[in-house]
Amino acid sequence: MTNPTAAILVIGDEILSGRTRDSNLHFLAGELTRLGITLCEARIVADIHSEIVDAVRTLSSKYTHLFTSGGIGPTHDDITADAVAEAMGVPISHRADAMALLQAHYDRSGLPFNEARQRMARIPDGAALIDNPVSTAPGFTIGNVHVMAGVPNIFQAMVASVLPTLTGGPPLLSQSLRVNRGEGEIAGPFGALAAEFPDLSMGSYPFIQNGAHGANLVVRGTDPGRLDAAMVKLTQLFG
Amino acid sequence: MTNPTAAILVIGDEILSGRTRDSNLHFLAGELTRLGITLCEARIVADIHSEIVDAVRTLSSKYTHLFTSGGIGPTHDDITADAVAEAMGVPISHRADAMALLQAHYDRSGLPFNEARQRMARIPDGAALIDNPVSTAPGFTIGNVHVMAGVPNIFQAMVASVLPTLTGGPPLLSQSLRVNRGEGEIAGPFGALAAEFPDLSMGSYPFIQNGAHGANLVVRGTDPGRLDAAMVKLTQLFG
Repeated sequence: MTNPTAAILVIGDEILSGRTRDSNLHFLAGELTRLGITLCEARIVADIHSEIVDAVRTLSSKYTHLFTSGGIGPTHDDITADAVAEAMGVPISHRADAMALLQAHYDRSGLPFNEARQRMARIPDGAALIDNPVSTAPGFTIGNVHVMAGVPNIFQAMVASVLPTLTGGPPLLSQSLRVNRGEGEIAGPFGALAAEFPDLSMGSYPFIQNGAHGANLVVRGTDPGRLDAAMVKLTQLFG
Repeated sequence: MTNPTAAILVIGDEILSGRTRDSNLHFLAGELTRLGITLCEARIVADIHSEIVDAVRTLSSKYTHLFTSGGIGPTHDDITADAVAEAMGVPISHRADAMALLQAHYDRSGLPFNEARQRMARIPDGAALIDNPVSTAPGFTIGNVHVMAGVPNIFQAMVASVLPTLTGGPPLLSQSLRVNRGEGEIAGPFGALAAEFPDLSMGSYPFIQNGAHGANLVVRGTDPGRLDAAMVKLTQLFG
């Protein structure tokens, strides 16, 4: 695989308590696949400084890119920026460029640019700001770590700002065949086919519909010709 | 915190490629919260043996319980049972009890109990089987690791089999207040209130509705009296 790799780190108690269902991970997974970046791992951790620091260190060393979601607002539980700064070994302060952006925003809206709001200008030294067209308060990129807001429409807007700056590999293509037979019936020949195409990834995703077992057989790879060749054989076997 | 802790490990390429949106994590989060077990971390890894082994080792040592989802079917990409056995340092084989369950199931349904289906009887030595009332093929518990299927209705049935065997702590209660003001306006007093109640966890979950900023302020803890006291003060501040 020559494709760049990535992980996402979702930060927030609300997902782990079951209060909120994460949608950022699923959104980013789709976008990265289109861009030819392989999402290899996802983690969700609570709002605990040391947990965020450890996860950022591990994932940013292991993959080409790390994307984070959540914890960059003005409240006391927003601790992501400080944790990322510590993980990357750089100082963090109220940075002039972010202060100016936010000052102008609150001047326009007639709201006080108070201490809490100024927290959103805390940006690690050396980071580049990520544009937030929804509510101004910026995300940032430091090294290979892209730090973004957790509110889904802001997260999505920040992803749209960041992704065009990254270099993807060949797009990860997939084709699938729906088979109305149990996995146990198709597993033998399907496994043999997967072994014939070691450059492709083949997975079986079972379902039960109206009490009957079936599976979606998915073939993934970057070479359209190889995918087509595999799908021809797959259809001969199970179509 | 005296509550037992937990992590969930979701195994499967299909979530990371964006093809499928995970629902097991969200379901388990809600069930554990009701039972008084704190879900501290979630990870999603691909169908790669070494990644599963590493994650099982790390998470099972760190938390009271580890729950896994996915990768225990009959196809070549179902590698969870072998990875868990390696992580826990025990042998794995086609176990007689699981073979008997599955043999009876396929005898009843008139389907051949072929080699692929026999793979689902591969259970690590010393593990206890988890009942699967939907499609028979069992999950298993070894040490503090509970290994379950990825298909949501089977996962949920297995969770229903496992959770009554676990000891929870006091239920994690939560109350919330919806505030139609921006987080920047409430952050100062909200942070001060959180500092007054160090035994509770307080989080702010912002939203944008019809262009206006608001937040759900959530207070969590195990002592109903303390939660009520905090909510009285919260309502005085922002109600």
